[in-house]
Parts: sequence; structure tokens; C-alpha cells
Amino acid sequence: QGILERLDAGEIVIGDGGFVFALEKRGYVKAGPWTPEATVEHPEAVRQLHREFLRAGSNVLQTFTFYATEDKLENRGNYVAEKISCHKVNEAACDIAREVANEGDALVAGGVSQTPSYLSCKDKAEVKATFQKQLEVFVKKNVDFLIAEYFEHVEEAVWAVEVLKESGKPVAATMCIGPEGDMHGVSPGQCAVQLVKAGASIVGVNCHFDPETSIETVRLMKEGLQAAKLKAHLICQPLALHTPDCGKQGFIDLPEFPFALEPRIATRWDIQKYARKAYDLGIRFIGGCCGFEPYHIRAIAEELAPERGFLPEASEKHGSWGDNLSMHTKPWVRARARKEYWENLKPASGRPYCPCMSKPDGWGVTKGAEELMQQKEATTEKQLKELFQKKKF
Amino acid sequence: QGILERLDAGEIVIGDGGFVFALEKRGYVKAGPWTPEATVEHPEAVRQLHREFLRAGSNVLQTFTFYATEDKLENRGNYVAEKISCHKVNEAACDIAREVANEGDALVAGGVSQTPSYLSCKDKAEVKATFQKQLEVFVKKNVDFLIAEYFEHVEEAVWAVEVLKESGKPVAATMCIGPEGDMHGVSPGQCAVQLVKAGASIVGVNCHFDPETSIETVRLMKEGLQAAKLKAHLICQPLALHTPDCGKQGFIDLPEFPFALEPRIATRWDIQKYARKAYDLGIRFIGGCCGFEPYHIRAIAEELAPERGFLPEASEKHGSWGDNLSMHTKPWVRARARKEYWENLKPASGRPYCPCMSKPDGWGVTKGAEELMQQKEATTEKQLKELFQKKKF
Amino acid sequence: QGILERLDAGEIVIGDGGFVFALEKRGYVKAGPWTPEATVEHPEAVRQLHREFLRAGSNVLQTFTFYATEDKLENRGNYVAEKISCHKVNEAACDIAREVANEGDALVAGGVSQTPSYLSCKDKAEVKATFQKQLEVFVKKNVDFLIAEYFEHVEEAVWAVEVLKESGKPVAATMCIGPEGDMHGVSPGQCAVQLVKAGASIVGVNCHFDPETSIETVRLMKEGLQAAKLKAHLICQPLALHTPDCGKQGFIDLPEFPFALEPRIATRWDIQKYARKAYDLGIRFIGGCCGFEPYHIRAIAEELAPERGFLPEASEKHGSWGDNLSMHTKPWVRARARKEYWENLKPASGRPYCPCMSKPDGWGVTKGAEELMQQKEATTEKQLKELFQKKKF
Amino acid sequence: QGILERLDAGEIVIGDGGFVFALEKRGYVKAGPWTPEATVEHPEAVRQLHREFLRAGSNVLQTFTFYATEDKLENRGNYVAEKISCHKVNEAACDIAREVANEGDALVAGGVSQTPSYLSCKDKAEVKATFQKQLEVFVKKNVDFLIAEYFEHVEEAVWAVEVLKESGKPVAATMCIGPEGDMHGVSPGQCAVQLVKAGASIVGVNCHFDPETSIETVRLMKEGLQAAKLKAHLICQPLALHTPDCGKQGFIDLPEFPFALEPRIATRWDIQKYARKAYDLGIRFIGGCCGFEPYHIRAIAEELAPERGFLPEASEKHGSWGDNLSMHTKPWVRARARKEYWENLKPASGRPYCPCMSKPDGWGVTKGAEELMQQKEATTEKQLKELFQKKKF
Repeated sequence: QGILERLDAGEIVIGDGGFVFALEKRGYVKAGPWTPEATVEHPEAVRQLHREFLRAGSNVLQTFTFYATEDKLENRGNYVAEKISCHKVNEAACDIAREVANEGDALVAGGVSQTPSYLSCKDKAEVKATFQKQLEVFVKKNVDFLIAEYFEHVEEAVWAVEVLKESGKPVAATMCIGPEGDMHGVSPGQCAVQLVKAGASIVGVNCHFDPETSIETVRLMKEGLQAAKLKAHLICQPLALHTPDCGKQGFIDLPEFPFALEPRIATRWDIQKYARKAYDLGIRFIGGCCGFEPYHIRAIAEELAPERGFLPEASEKHGSWGDNLSMHTKPWVRARARKEYWENLKPASGRPYCPCMSKPDGWGVTKGAEELMQQKEATTEKQLKELFQKKKF
Repeated sequence: QGILERLDAGEIVIGDGGFVFALEKRGYVKAGPWTPEATVEHPEAVRQLHREFLRAGSNVLQTFTFYATEDKLENRGNYVAEKISCHKVNEAACDIAREVANEGDALVAGGVSQTPSYLSCKDKAEVKATFQKQLEVFVKKNVDFLIAEYFEHVEEAVWAVEVLKESGKPVAATMCIGPEGDMHGVSPGQCAVQLVKAGASIVGVNCHFDPETSIETVRLMKEGLQAAKLKAHLICQPLALHTPDCGKQGFIDLPEFPFALEPRIATRWDIQKYARKAYDLGIRFIGGCCGFEPYHIRAIAEELAPERGFLPEASEKHGSWGDNLSMHTKPWVRARARKEYWENLKPASGRPYCPCMSKPDGWGVTKGAEELMQQKEATTEKQLKELFQKKKF
Repeated sequence: QGILERLDAGEIVIGDGGFVFALEKRGYVKAGPWTPEATVEHPEAVRQLHREFLRAGSNVLQTFTFYATEDKLENRGNYVAEKISCHKVNEAACDIAREVANEGDALVAGGVSQTPSYLSCKDKAEVKATFQKQLEVFVKKNVDFLIAEYFEHVEEAVWAVEVLKESGKPVAATMCIGPEGDMHGVSPGQCAVQLVKAGASIVGVNCHFDPETSIETVRLMKEGLQAAKLKAHLICQPLALHTPDCGKQGFIDLPEFPFALEPRIATRWDIQKYARKAYDLGIRFIGGCCGFEPYHIRAIAEELAPERGFLPEASEKHGSWGDNLSMHTKPWVRARARKEYWENLKPASGRPYCPCMSKPDGWGVTKGAEELMQQKEATTEKQLKELFQKKKF
Repeated sequence: QGILERLDAGEIVIGDGGFVFALEKRGYVKAGPWTPEATVEHPEAVRQLHREFLRAGSNVLQTFTFYATEDKLENRGNYVAEKISCHKVNEAACDIAREVANEGDALVAGGVSQTPSYLSCKDKAEVKATFQKQLEVFVKKNVDFLIAEYFEHVEEAVWAVEVLKESGKPVAATMCIGPEGDMHGVSPGQCAVQLVKAGASIVGVNCHFDPETSIETVRLMKEGLQAAKLKAHLICQPLALHTPDCGKQGFIDLPEFPFALEPRIATRWDIQKYARKAYDLGIRFIGGCCGFEPYHIRAIAEELAPERGFLPEASEKHGSWGDNLSMHTKPWVRARARKEYWENLKPASGRPYCPCMSKPDGWGVTKGAEELMQQKEATTEKQLKELFQKKKF
């Protein structure tokens, strides 16, 4: 059964977690470029991560094609372009995802994401051509459906959806925005309306914000669709990080991004609460993005097991709400084998000299970057960087 | 070259990270029992984790044989005993470790750990027989050396060393203790002395405490050996978690153990500081235990690259001190591409309603458990659990 | 010179601090009732506090007549009503304030505040009669001007201003609201407009919120007045407490109110920052409310000394920005005698087991109280309390 | 009845709180010098503070003669020496304390404290002469007993006790030390023994550390006395500040000292817990030092009211454990009128960007100061300061 048949029938569809963050920690992706050449360089590592998500309960395996457009890979060319063609990266991603999906009951979704071409103001035709090239691979490899994700500007997301729709396959579209809307100030409700009008059957958000904030954004999208009398399925794939202190651009502006985010990582219980809230709002495609490890996806599947009627395979190695601790050696650890304990625990950081909240970077600095470039005070990246380094971060 | 040749020559030997914690999150190990049946059930997952540590710079791959004694697997029998023999678990662990070690320049270390037999007061002969069975596999599979690790009582550790020494292979021994010493009150210095006298060539600590505390414990061991005019190499394999607030039994007593420890996870920069301090104290076998993911091991290898003269393979996907962020899309993230930034950052938790420190469980409760059993107020595990559940945790 | 002459001439007028909180800690006011019978019972304590504020730089001494209406004192009658008449409390307050004002260059302001009569839905005539009785004393004792303060509903504040205006004396009006507006949802801008139309020459806020939030509320009031083309002087008298986590009703809803607010107390440096921000927004009547001790008022006077051209008397015992520490015994304390040190210090709480933020009480509960009364589920205060106590706070 | 008659009879004697900190905030004492010339300059302010402590339950009023020796006042001479003689400061302090003590049932204690003469290595005779001059005033004004307090070196404290004993009046002696002992490394137990041998009838600690740490220090003193088979009454007068993070020299080394300590201020409930613990250890002279305001002293008297059989006068304005909140306007505040609420509350700081713990200054720096002077690298105070300012604080 396809993605729309499942959602139309009221099924809960569980997405997968974040590849670039998990594979960076495993040693296969470089933070900064965040490109997916590992599909060619180390297919076994990509395959293993897909398999862990499948085992944890994912019904959708996304091809690891994030940032896998020619403009991006070229832009980061000193790392990969000469060695590995963009085409091969995308093909290998499809093959690996399909191989693992066939080990269970999962769909393969081909994914496209925001492009450097759009950010550097290339015209609509050029940006669309970029997506077109990825789509050719997805069609050839016959993925089950398509996801346009991680868009900061609804204009670019709409262009992506328009391209993907040409394939005739179902299209989901998620933006990496919060309740304040896209980078041009378009509200979440308006974003959702434009995406559905462009042809998306499933709309929502991914990345950049924590679960609570992301659910609020999807709620605003839902309201926008209702007001416009449009219908679509809802999807949510947030960070598995606590980011109450970030601004409009999300966690990228936090001083801890990307190498000191550990104290913010969500527990499995945080994720169970997220899954329940997402479900209660009517979201039926529930997954994760950066920070989501396999055990976080399992937490979604376990929280919604009563509704779905079954547990994921990886729950063989996990008890509901810490139940398995009843086998622990120490009696006072056994006493933690109950829901009330974990549900109410306020975990300590063990970092008494650190604050609880950060002040995000780039407030003013962000504006500065755009202004400096517009006002020709910095015309090269080098100049811009020099200007920034004089400021206090 | 063997482990002792390397250490005698003054080389830095980098250990690997924690298997039970990493594989629990990946869906292959059950918290509570923490047993390694995955070597038989899901060898590809164990192999991939070994490979990631090798790539990150590990010179030693430990067989995944933690808690793989018959008494432990039987004790947790409802999970695995009928399906998988203890013997097979140990054999598969050796085969996988050797396969991956051959992909690079790594040694294989066979590992034994504390037993339920000792905790339930079986006699010396019976406890030693347990280690003997594991050793038979290690000898048959011809591991390069042996590690007796995760011992809370030096008496049991000494018995383990005595058994392992019979093989003629070099033996390392690590206890999961802090500066207060073992559970019977033997000081770290005395523990080290007894272990070396029993035949260990390398002594130190693993697990239970954070890097800072663990280094302090090894320092006390070093002093003990100096006072006794004994010589041995030093090893440190701590948690990658901040645990300033735990008591004598380490992180197990923390209310967050084992399912809400996320805010305590060390950053890669925390680990670089640990590697430097360990090196400065004269420790030359530097690795990790629970919480250490591949990127933490890479941090050790990167910190000590000036002394060693080379970087690990996985540094292809990592820049020194965030250097690779100079390729990030946002200029203010590019401005984080420098050592001073990450070295001095105090990371926030994003959890304003949570405290920074916890009060460990089992203070009094611990004593209670032992007393209750001694005083026959609880004669079965069920009774004990009931008594505990009436208390407030 | 009167208050309006000073403000019209562009002078900075410094208010005084909070009496009920300071005198509660000194042992003369009871938290809960918060009534000012100390003016009769212990005039020396009230006099001394006035004197300290005068010495710290206050240009206005408010009579200690907070909650000194007959309905309030009767309502709390078991404490004082039989012993002390409302009339005497108000008269003594005027006498003490005038006595101390004459020791320096200060004006006396007679103050009225919200009444139980309004909250229990008495009609306009009855509420106004309450203010009328206090006003009679103020006229007889010839205070210099009048302040209607601590109003949660602009309707009641307007009634108070209308009464006070009858005296012919200048009237200031402050509400204890935040940026969300009054308890009936009237915005700060609209509140300011209504108060000025009713006859207030000076408008702003007092109590309930921290300095930063209060300045934001006054900014909204200023915008409202500008939009309505009305002119008035601005006043700000916030808490000397950090309350970023409180809701619409301010610090009263915080779990720490009123007996565990200590960790939130502002430092003198926090107050210097407040004074500067208030000044920069164009506020010229700058004072404080609960939590403001004499040294906080001195901090306002010291921060604005460059603009005013003089320091307050109490600065004899204080150096600018810690300058006086250059006389300390310990050299490393002497090294703290500089502005950059105190300006940038992030003070620790010394409470590692406590969170940084609280979740305010009464969210839902607040609404519940009003609803319960409206829906006749609770028709007496006793019933209401019983209903509340069943809930979890 | 005298102090010893009361203590010998098993009575609980409640001390007073901290004058220099309270009067600094009120505008009458200068931080840095911390000298008590206010007794002459502003007797009404000193009198009012004595009165508030009396009302709160103090049985002992200490003369405000802290640092009132000629060497200290001269050393800080640019402030007071020319205007006010040391003799007058001490005389006025005695007169004011006696006047207020006569308003209730309190004893007057004449107090001496550490001297600059000792710190600058004057000989025994010269240091003793300094104390002798203060004692002359105390004898002339006939105080009820004497307290030698705030000594960092037991040697100087012993000299003080020897001088005070000559008067024939009972002598109490308190050191400002923690469990690590005095600045020359003499343990608390040894300090107590020396003080009792010198003639002190009451020994303990004051200032520098929080209640919990101070009780621990007194416990060590008690053990020392028991081991030496000596008898003495115990006294404890700690800070009303949380200082778990300070080192051997106490709160002076904390970066927040003395102008940003607010987040550390103890609540009344913290002080009730202190009073109970002090009582349980057998301490019968229980008071406070810096940070103790009148309401903190009242908390001691309220906690120990069951044992003493009466409440202090100021409890007229306070209900036990927040009882008086049952009269509050808001129902959810009324729900806080119970012991369990306040006893278990973990108060938030409202400062999410601040840490919970500080790293004290002067670690190394302290040692540095002494070393620098010993090694003649800095021979004047100016040189020393310059050396320090080059360091990072």
C-alpha cells in the first residue's frame, strides 16, 4: 500500500530519524558541508543506519540524498566533486534504501532539499532544473513517493513541489520553519496553503526546532488550511533537541550548534510525549530529523503502540517505560521500572557551571550579513567573514 | 606488535568506546540485563560499531563479551539462554572483532567482567571457573591480550587476573571505582597494588565515573604503585557523561540512570580535555566506556595527533576544532570555526525547569538493601522490591 | 517645585522602593494582608525606611497607605480593625512621610491602590467612595501630589483617577500589568489612553513584573498615547526581582511568591541597567516597587548621576561600580573594583538542585476561579478554596 | 541572668544577624572598609536594626564594633579617622545596644574582631594592645559578656581571648573558618581546643560559610573538644547565603562577593532547616552573620518555638510556615499556606543565562599573593595589585 492509501485509511505512519547528525557522530559525514557522499564511500554505514530505523519502527525510509544536488556538491567540491558524481550519490542512496525497505514493511521516499542556487538568487528555471536532475534518478529507481524537505523559503519549496509532481508520485513537503514563518515572513498557515495548492498531499515541518515548537507550527499550518478550506495530511519531523531559546532561524543560531548540543538531546520520554501530542493534533506522519537516533524513533512506535496494535521489532530489546529495569542488578535501579518515575523525572545536566539557556547568535548579525552583501560592503565571502570575525560572538 | 611492546616503547594506545550503551540506542541490547547476545543475533550491528571505532582511531577492539558468562546469561535466561549458548556468544564476539581489526592496525582484546556468582557469594573456585570458560574461547580464537574490566570488588578482579594470566597473554585490569575505592573500602592505590601483584601489566579504571573523576582515581592508583615500588602501565576508560554529583557507586545511583542521561553527555571538546589530562598524568592506554560514541574516540585521537604524528581515518570527515565549519552556509556559523570558540563555550541545556545536579538514589537505600537481606526482612527478590517500592525515590 | 514643574523641565525624578516587602522582612508587615498599620503601631520603622530611601536619592516619598482602605482593613480585620482606625493609619502615614521629606528635597505623594470592593463587584459609587475617604486625609494633610497605583483593571484605575482629580492636585497612575494588558484584556496602550483621558498627568506601571518587562509595557503605553495624540509623562516602578517566567498576573503566580523569591532578587548592577534603559525610552519618573531596597534606589541615582549632575547622600558609603573595593583586605577582591567586572558577571545561585525557571501556578486555575464563580459552582470564598485545594499545585 | 547561666540551664540563646551587610544595603556602611562609624554618624539607623533583631527574637545584641580598632579605622582613614575617634565609635555602639536591649530581654555583647596589625605581622604585644583599647570601653560601659569573632587565624583569636578574659566577663570565641580549618592549617578541632584552653566558655564559627558548612565545622570542633576532654558551649553564626562552591577562605573568594550575591540569599525556610540542624547537634547559641536580616532571625525563633515555648514579638506579623497566606486575595496563593509546600519548594532563580555554581577566585591567586610577597616579587601593595590585574579573574 502506498503512502496516501495508508494515511487515507487513518493509519499512523512513522518516519525515520536524522542521517547527517547520526552519521557525523559515526564518522561518515562532515559537519559544515553536510553532504551525503557516504552512500558511495561507505554504503555499509548508511545501510546499517537505515536498518536500525526500520527495526525501530520506521514505515518510511528516506533516501540519503540531503543536499545531494550538483550545485551543493560542487560548492563543497574540494571534498567530493572530483571523486564522486552527484548522479552516483543519488543512485546509491536509492539502492541502499530499497534494499533495507525490502527487509521489512517500509516505503522508500526520494528526498530533495533547499539549494545553494536559490540562496544565490538563480532564477526559477535554474533552480527547478536542479530538482529535475534528482527526480530523474528517483523515477528511474522507482521510489514510492517524494519528499521536498528542509526549505526555509516557501517560494523555493513550491518550485520543488511543482517539479516533483510531474512524476505522478505522491509528494510531501516540509519546511524548516517555526511559528514565525518562513525567512520572507510568510506565515505557517500561508506556507501550507501554497504548498497544497502546488500539489503537495502531505505538509508540515522538519528540522530546526524542538518537538514542542514544531507541533505548534504544524497547528498553525492546520489552521491555515482549514481557513482556506483545503485538505492535506500533516507531517512532523522535528529535532530531538531542546531549543526553547532559539530564534526564527532555529537551532543553527544557537552558540552550541553543531558541536556542543549534547546537553539538549531529548530523552526517549521526551519523545513519547511528543508522539502523543502530535497524534492528538491529528498528525499522522510522525518522524524526526537531526538528533533522532533509532531509540527515539522506537519511542514514537512504543507510545503509539496502543493505537497501532503492535510494537516494533527493536522493542524486543526494550521494555515499556523502563520495564526492563526490573532485571537490573541493583534494587534501587529496579525501583525505576515504572512509568511515573520516568514521566516525572527532571533530568540534571551535571554541568553546574553552565547556564540553562543560550542567547542565539546572529541576532543583528544575521541582518548584518544580508545587509552587508546588499550594500556591497562585503562582496566576497572572505570579506564577509573578516567583517564578522571582528564582532563579538 | 603486541600491546606491551607498544606501551613499553612509549606509544599512545587508544581504546574503543562503550558497546552496551551505543547498541541499546541502536536497538540491539537490552538495558537492565545489558548482555551481548547481539554478537549472534545481529552480527552486522556489532561489526559496524567496531568498524566505526577503528575508523575513529581505536588501536584496540575489545570483544563484545561484557557480562557474557554463563551465570549472567542464565540469570537473564528468559531473554536468551534457551536460544543462544554462552559459548556461541563469546565465539562470535571474537570472530567479529578479529574481522574488523584486520581491516586496520588494531589489536583484539578478550574481555571478562564482574559475575553474578561473586555477588551471590559463590566460592573462589566457582567464580574462577566462570572466567575459565570465557578464557577457553579467547585462547582458541587467539586474541592478542586480555582485559579484566568493570570490577567493583578488587577481590573478584584479582581472581579474574589470576585466571587470565594462566593463558600467558598480557593482562590489563580495570575497576569501575572512584577515588573512594572499591565496595569493600579498599583504596585505589591498594587495588592497583593487588592487581599488579596478581599479574596485571596494565591497571586503571573503566566506567561508572566521568573523565575527571576517573583520572583522579588513576592518579591515586599511580601513587599506590609508586609507594609500593611496583611498575605497571596505566589505563583509563571512563564514561562520556558528566557525573559530578554521583556517590561511591557511580552513575548507577543517579536518578537519570539509564534512560535520562542525555543532558550529561560529553561534547567532543570535553573529551579532548580529558585526553590531554590523561596524557599529562602518564596514562598511555586511553579509551572510553558507556557513552563514548565513535566521535568521542576520534576526539582523543585528534587531541593527541601532535604526539602521535597522524590523524585517524574518520578525521577525513572532521576538521580540527570545528575547522570544517568554515564551509557552512551561514556566516555566523562559519565564525565558530576556531579553537577558542569551542574551548571556552559553556553549553546550555535548553532545559530551564531542570536542575544542574541530582541527588543520587540509594544513599541509605543501598544500605537498606544489604541490611534488609542480612536481617532477613526480605528473603526473596520480590519481597525486597516490594519493600523498596514503598519508599520515596 | 511641584512634580509637574520638575518633569516639564526635563528633570529626572527618582521614586522610592517597596514598603510592604521591606517591612515584612524587618518584621512590621504581614504577608497575605499586606496592610500598613505599622504607621500607627511602629512609626519609627516606617520613618527609618523613608529616611533610607531619601538618603539613597528618592525625590518622592509615597505615603505608606497601600491597601489602607476601610474595606481592606476590615476584610483583614482580625488583625487590626478593632485596634486601629483606617483614618488614623492614613493620617500617620502622611505625617511620617512629610517629616522625612522635610529632611531633604523630596515631595510627598499620597497613594491609593486597588480595592476589595471592586473585586467583589461593588458598584462605581461605592468604589469611588472608598477612594474618597483616603483622599480626604491627603487633602487635609496637604500632600504634594497623588498616585493611583497597583491596579489590575483599568476601569477601577480610571475611577480612582477621577476621584483624585477632584482635589486639583497632579495625579499619576500606574497599573500592575505586563505587555498583555489588564485582566480584562485591555492593552497597555489603551490603558494609558483611558488614564490620561481621565485626568492623569503621569502614567506607567508598578509592581508585578521585572524591570525589563515593565519597560516593555511602558513602551507599549507610550505608543498608545502617540497613536492617540495624547501627551503625558511616563513612570516606571517595577519589581527588583527577575521574573521572566511569570504569566499575565505577574509574580504572584510564581510558586516562589512571596516567601522564596530570594534567588530572583536583582543586583545593584541589574538596576543600573534598568535605570539606563528606562531613561533611554524617555521615562523620567523612575522608581521601584516590591524588592527595591534603599541600595537599589541608590543604583538608579548613581547610574543617572552624569545626567543629573550629582550623587545621592548615601553614595558617601558607596563607590561607583565597586570602586570602594580598592580598599578591601584581599588583593583579588581589590581586583573587582572596576565596571567591566560587575557589568559582565553572571551571578551563580549556589543552588545546584534548583531549576532556573518556574512554571507559574494558576494557569488554568486562574481561569478556573473566574469560571467557577461565574458558573455558580462556587458562590462563597470558602467553597472556592475547597475546590482549589483539591487540585495539584 | 547572664549568658552562662542561660546556657548552663539548657536554654536556647538566639543571636542577632549581620550588621555590615544589612547597613551597607541601607546606605550606612561602606563595602571594602566595612567599618562601623555609623554608630556616631547615624545612630538612628543602627538603633533601628538592633530593634528589628530584638523584635525578631534575638537574646543577644552585639555592639556594632566590628573592625572598630584604631589600626583598622586609621588604615581606612580617608573615610573617618579625622572626623571620628575610634573611642567614640566604640562608646556609641555600647550605648545604642544597651538602650535597645533594655526594651526587651536581651544581653549586650561587646565584640572584637581580627586586626590589620596581626595581618601585617605586628608582634603579640602590639596586637593585644589593640584589643585592650576596645576592652576598656566595654568594661566602662559594662557589657554583659564578650565575643571575639571573625578570626581567620587561631593564634590571633587566642590572643584576643586572653585579653578579654582579663575583664572577668564570660568570653565567646568564633572563627570564620570552614571544615579545612584556619589559614595556617590548624584543624577546627584544634582551634576549639586552643580557644577553650585560652579561656573561652563558648566556641564556634561565624561568617564566611553557609549554614550547612558552618554546622559541619562546629561538629568538628565538638569532636576535637570531646577528644581533649574539654567542655564548652557551642555557637554558630553563619552566612545567610548558599556557598557550596567556595574554597577555604569562604565567600570572599566567590566572584559574586560582595555586590552580586543576591541569588544566593537564603529563604526563611532554609534558615528554619539550619536552626533545626544546629539544635540537633547540640548548639545552643544560634545566630547569624552577613546576609541575616531580621526575618532570618525570626525563622530561627519560629523553628525552635516548640522547644522554647514562645514566639518572638515579630511573629505577630508572620504565620508559621506561610500560614498567613490563607488571607491572600488569590485562591492559588492561599493554597500555599502549608508547611509541605514551602519545605519542599525548590526556588528558581529567574536567571536562565546564569550558572548555578561559580569557580572561586584566588585559587592559585591566593597562594600567589602570599608567595609573591614572600619571594619579594611584590613589596608594595601597589605592585601586588598590578601583578594581579594582569591575571584573568
